[in-house]
Amino acid sequence: MVGYAFMGAAHSQGWRTAGHVFDLPMRPVLAAVCGRDRSAVEAAAAKHGWAAAETDWRRLIERDDVQVVDVCTPGDSHAEIAIAALEAGKHVLCEKPLANSVAEAEAMVRAAEAARTRGQLAMVGFNYRRVPAVSYARKLIEAGRLGALRHVRVTYLQDWLADPEAPLTWRLDRERAGSGALGDLGAHIVDLAQFLAGEPIAGVSALSETFVRERPVLSGARAGLSGAAGSAYGPVTVDDAAVFTGRLASGALASFEATRMAAGRKNALRLEINGERGSLAFDLERLNELSFHDHSEPAATAGFRRILVTEPEHPYLEAWWPPGHGLGYEHTFVHQARDLVLAVAAGADPAPSFADGLQVQRVLAAVEESAAKNAVYTPVPPPDAPRA
Amino acid sequence: MVGYAFMGAAHSQGWRTAGHVFDLPMRPVLAAVCGRDRSAVEAAAAKHGWAAAETDWRRLIERDDVQVVDVCTPGDSHAEIAIAALEAGKHVLCEKPLANSVAEAEAMVRAAEAARTRGQLAMVGFNYRRVPAVSYARKLIEAGRLGALRHVRVTYLQDWLADPEAPLTWRLDRERAGSGALGDLGAHIVDLAQFLAGEPIAGVSALSETFVRERPVLSGARAGLSGAAGSAYGPVTVDDAAVFTGRLASGALASFEATRMAAGRKNALRLEINGERGSLAFDLERLNELSFHDHSEPAATAGFRRILVTEPEHPYLEAWWPPGHGLGYEHTFVHQARDLVLAVAAGADPAPSFADGLQVQRVLAAVEESAAKNAVYTPVPPPDAPRA
Amino acid sequence: MVGYAFMGAAHSQGWRTAGHVFDLPMRPVLAAVCGRDRSAVEAAAAKHGWAAAETDWRRLIERDDVQVVDVCTPGDSHAEIAIAALEAGKHVLCEKPLANSVAEAEAMVRAAEAARTRGQLAMVGFNYRRVPAVSYARKLIEAGRLGALRHVRVTYLQDWLADPEAPLTWRLDRERAGSGALGDLGAHIVDLAQFLAGEPIAGVSALSETFVRERPVLSGARAGLSGAAGSAYGPVTVDDAAVFTGRLASGALASFEATRMAAGRKNALRLEINGERGSLAFDLERLNELSFHDHSEPAATAGFRRILVTEPEHPYLEAWWPPGHGLGYEHTFVHQARDLVLAVAAGADPAPSFADGLQVQRVLAAVEESAAKNAVYTPVPPPDAPRA
Amino acid sequence: MVGYAFMGAAHSQGWRTAGHVFDLPMRPVLAAVCGRDRSAVEAAAAKHGWAAAETDWRRLIERDDVQVVDVCTPGDSHAEIAIAALEAGKHVLCEKPLANSVAEAEAMVRAAEAARTRGQLAMVGFNYRRVPAVSYARKLIEAGRLGALRHVRVTYLQDWLADPEAPLTWRLDRERAGSGALGDLGAHIVDLAQFLAGEPIAGVSALSETFVRERPVLSGARAGLSGAAGSAYGPVTVDDAAVFTGRLASGALASFEATRMAAGRKNALRLEINGERGSLAFDLERLNELSFHDHSEPAATAGFRRILVTEPEHPYLEAWWPPGHGLGYEHTFVHQARDLVLAVAAGADPAPSFADGLQVQRVLAAVEESAAKNAVYTPVPPPDAPRA
Repeated sequence: MVGYAFMGAAHSQGWRTAGHVFDLPMRPVLAAVCGRDRSAVEAAAAKHGWAAAETDWRRLIERDDVQVVDVCTPGDSHAEIAIAALEAGKHVLCEKPLANSVAEAEAMVRAAEAARTRGQLAMVGFNYRRVPAVSYARKLIEAGRLGALRHVRVTYLQDWLADPEAPLTWRLDRERAGSGALGDLGAHIVDLAQFLAGEPIAGVSALSETFVRERPVLSGARAGLSGAAGSAYGPVTVDDAAVFTGRLASGALASFEATRMAAGRKNALRLEINGERGSLAFDLERLNELSFHDHSEPAATAGFRRILVTEPEHPYLEAWWPPGHGLGYEHTFVHQARDLVLAVAAGADPAPSFADGLQVQRVLAAVEESAAKNAVYTPVPPPDAPRA
Repeated sequence: MVGYAFMGAAHSQGWRTAGHVFDLPMRPVLAAVCGRDRSAVEAAAAKHGWAAAETDWRRLIERDDVQVVDVCTPGDSHAEIAIAALEAGKHVLCEKPLANSVAEAEAMVRAAEAARTRGQLAMVGFNYRRVPAVSYARKLIEAGRLGALRHVRVTYLQDWLADPEAPLTWRLDRERAGSGALGDLGAHIVDLAQFLAGEPIAGVSALSETFVRERPVLSGARAGLSGAAGSAYGPVTVDDAAVFTGRLASGALASFEATRMAAGRKNALRLEINGERGSLAFDLERLNELSFHDHSEPAATAGFRRILVTEPEHPYLEAWWPPGHGLGYEHTFVHQARDLVLAVAAGADPAPSFADGLQVQRVLAAVEESAAKNAVYTPVPPPDAPRA
Repeated sequence: MVGYAFMGAAHSQGWRTAGHVFDLPMRPVLAAVCGRDRSAVEAAAAKHGWAAAETDWRRLIERDDVQVVDVCTPGDSHAEIAIAALEAGKHVLCEKPLANSVAEAEAMVRAAEAARTRGQLAMVGFNYRRVPAVSYARKLIEAGRLGALRHVRVTYLQDWLADPEAPLTWRLDRERAGSGALGDLGAHIVDLAQFLAGEPIAGVSALSETFVRERPVLSGARAGLSGAAGSAYGPVTVDDAAVFTGRLASGALASFEATRMAAGRKNALRLEINGERGSLAFDLERLNELSFHDHSEPAATAGFRRILVTEPEHPYLEAWWPPGHGLGYEHTFVHQARDLVLAVAAGADPAPSFADGLQVQRVLAAVEESAAKNAVYTPVPPPDAPRA
Repeated sequence: MVGYAFMGAAHSQGWRTAGHVFDLPMRPVLAAVCGRDRSAVEAAAAKHGWAAAETDWRRLIERDDVQVVDVCTPGDSHAEIAIAALEAGKHVLCEKPLANSVAEAEAMVRAAEAARTRGQLAMVGFNYRRVPAVSYARKLIEAGRLGALRHVRVTYLQDWLADPEAPLTWRLDRERAGSGALGDLGAHIVDLAQFLAGEPIAGVSALSETFVRERPVLSGARAGLSGAAGSAYGPVTVDDAAVFTGRLASGALASFEATRMAAGRKNALRLEINGERGSLAFDLERLNELSFHDHSEPAATAGFRRILVTEPEHPYLEAWWPPGHGLGYEHTFVHQARDLVLAVAAGADPAPSFADGLQVQRVLAAVEESAAKNAVYTPVPPPDAPRA
């Protein structure tokens, strides 16, 4: 694993746990973790249960005891590390967003395709697909329980930037993070919309905004930030929020909102999908629940059902606890680890693929283009569009 | 009152009840109701408690026992009736949307201004401003409890057209209704956004869609519909749904959705407003509740409060029942009647004014223009923009 | 109508409105209202729309223009007025609880039975049966959708006495009110349990408590209170809260709680019923909603449905507004007026009958007896038990 | 660890994870797990990460590499194993309920007291105290945010026995399980009531019921059940449900319900506590949320707040994920492991103690006694009552 901050901790928990909960044909071994600061990475290795620590990711991917490289760094290094790891013969799991640009993402897809011919797998970490309620939502849609889709609406609301004095971090720096709420939160909701609908977004119209343009620079964090040279306040070079609408390939209307300025909303990834035959709703703040409306039910007894997605019949749940004993955020990483192990054992393609990650990147690029051009409707190249 | 269908019944309940609940300086008398079909209008008069029935609205507005004309007809006749009533010296309450076009709305504002010099009042029926929770939300925003606004998101979701075999009615006919979900539902949410924020929408970017383009013609309803000449199916000439984003004058981002195709959502006018210091949320399906997050509260005890807006301190509530004994949809019309009576007694301007109705119309026109031009961001003329 | 305070206002709204909303064979006329203070009752008559005012209920029940006497006084006068009205040949609607004692209630049932032979009707005002969601819950249970009942749990939580400085009123005086939370709130939940289950409560075990034993005496209210002679504080002679368990005739377990000390709960009449085949839940603070779990649904898609009880298929709703346009507290009184008018027109027995009211009284008496005897399980005489 | 079924799996997850998430002075090592069937226990050891397997718990507690014995067996063996482990010089964590009888629990407390003089610790596994929302609720009550307590109501509703054909297991056998819903679910809610209120239950009045008295015998499970000799159906010898009321030492009224027959409720441990100054509510099915009503807030802005208990200021949360990224059921076991490790390292008494477990047992015994004696109010010996 490369990187050991928030995402690294979450991935570690996934790798450590998957083999103890699921019956897997291979059990993951936490071979080595990599970070630039030796004492910090060694402390992280000890804490998170990795057998060894490296300070150069190039050394990590050369190790013989490493079969899978898990990339948990900021977006600006995804492409370089992931491509090198694939070229070094490793399977790769790369955190989302796949890259900071379409060009990088395309290069990563090419590398993944080449590696695939050698039997290697590549997967992008859109972990929310693996919330059981979300997985099950996809199953219901796949089974036709919603009929023709009419509406997809997804918001991802957080509030850690609502306070104008919240400090600058690498996440507010365009060079490191690529974009702001859009790449961080928007990537998730774009992926979920396409995953759940089972079809790509065809075009978008977008507005974005940076409400607070300067924020206090934390002395310790200063080095890692571009454009923050010694002053008390530094520029925010990414968006605080983006709102966009779009059309799915089938013609359904979609709306999206990603923001870090929604006071009181901590992790409100909320989605609702309406179809001719039914509707689904989900809120990540209540991740064990799925709301389902069956429009074929007689009107007098119809209504959104609060399904506790904790039954053995639900995805992933057979291995966990009895009904009603809910899971949490980190379980998505356990499921991700499990699914990648199963794919490796079976030699099967895991999902979401790097191509799925590229498609998200294309949508985000179209969003940025539309936002820059007075919100004009901007088509998104389809999945089979030629790559540069 | 002109018109006696759904809106006429609701307004009647408001006029009949206001004087028995609130202590008013003048008590409304239900003098006469007007409709084209004599036996139907006489039945309506008897049922809803009107003393007389007329079949020609021109006769109604000539009656000496009429001081207020309440226009509850479809949008295509609002301008003609309201202007004539104002010219005849009556106060006018006109259902929303104010008109089917900006030009009509401008003419109505001109008529209202002229009438105002003669002491007459004109009010447009955006009744949801008078849900106590909505009125109270405005008070909290006005008092600065949200600080600088960042986000306004409002959806109005219904599902009575989710079934593709739901029949054609006048509401699906552009000539009668002006537009579809946009004018019917969108007008409400545009008004609420501007009312609550206390500022106009500066521009919009929009997509709209008619998912079901032909619907069965009910034989009885056929006559009233343009373009439905004897065939079993007739064309739907309005939008089923519209999604749009925008900016408020202050720079806050806004998103809107109006649809009649959201299976399972019956009357889901949902709004959330996020500011630097707090947030508010409301759902018309739970109209006695307001959610309020105070961002100045310590994080450990902060959270959205479910305020039951049924305390005597809340707008309109002193006259109603004890705390927790909720009100319903129709109470908005009782409050509307009360407020207009108070305005008449005081000679004060009621709100929302015809100018407020015009401003909504301008937003809706910009939405339609944007939707027709690839969603390009389309500015809305400000309230003080010159009128044609 | 006798009495014109809170209940009088609510009943007036019911009588005034029923004929304008429902198609009734007879339209109620608000003939006369009665109260002891002439100027106050005349003001009430004017405000609430009654044609005449009386200061002696004996005069009221002699009036030829009165066919129905609606008793809205405190419980200590119910028996005397209702029996006299029945003897005077009137139909009677009596507010709940039917009486302050079983003996009074028995006398009222006898009077009602005698009057029935003369074609007169008697009904007790358990208005919450007429919340559409509650009516519909009964229909689902009657149709067997819950199967054999296992559990009934009902709480009625208010908080207007949470503050120890809340003043004494007649409701805290045993002579006037009979009991405290038990008679006021407990009567409702006992009636609802028996109504919904369709069977009587067989026995109970109870604890009750008066947490605040002295409260400030309001000078204006002093005269009407026993035991509050001039002092600044007077004794509370009723219960603040009662909790009790019980068994229904079929063996289902039941639990009940009535309190005025539940800070933050304004009108939380919450009920849940679990049966072998399904469950229902309801909260009066969200009275347009009913939660229904169908246990025959596959586990993966099962869950409590939030039914918006606003469809034309639901009880009373055909006459009201479109789906999702909710009703409020006072509509229960409109429905009560409608149902009594229909019963009178048809010469049919209305429900709940005085016998139903007596049965509630028997349960409340058993609760008090159990509370006085160390909570020992105390049988309730069945509906067909001999009366004194 | 002794036992490796549901509880064993959950405890293993706790022991495996605690040291990787929290900074602990000692890191737990999973030395050995014990079960009677060698191949099964070896499989469990491999799966759950235990270094060794034993088939005799007496051998386990003799091992030198074992410092803590975690007892996860059915209740009938708790006393024997825990006492022996304490006598063997080990720290002991014992699953709830502490024992199947007061006498056993008393013996365990004596053993714990004796061991304490030798520096050993004993803790009982009421894991729900360690849901962060519950821990935080205790802090709010301790800080006086609720004032004098008036009401405690707690239900624990499950539905896995709603189906009369659900099979017999050891949990339905009095000899193994001690009691039914009462000991399994009731123990939790009794402990939580006493923990949160910070005071003991003084007395109870109870009803209990076995609705389904015979259930199908699974052939594989037959051996472990008393009274199920070869027949297709065997007797249920424990309660399906119990409802009880009580008084806390301070005089607050309490009500409780434990059932496995509440169709649609999967793990609905719901509690609400009302005090003079505020109220709290919690539902285990939404375990990341706590509802708090501050009664000192002005009425117009007061209401139950939905606190997402995921802030770094909340108990245990500093070590986990960012705000809004919720935890699940198993985290209670991680927290339990952490707290016991910290207690061992500090030589401090962990809570809940065996004495706390005994006090719960006394309440459960009083419940059973009351249920057997017509629900008569049955005092519970106070914590300082002499032990047999």
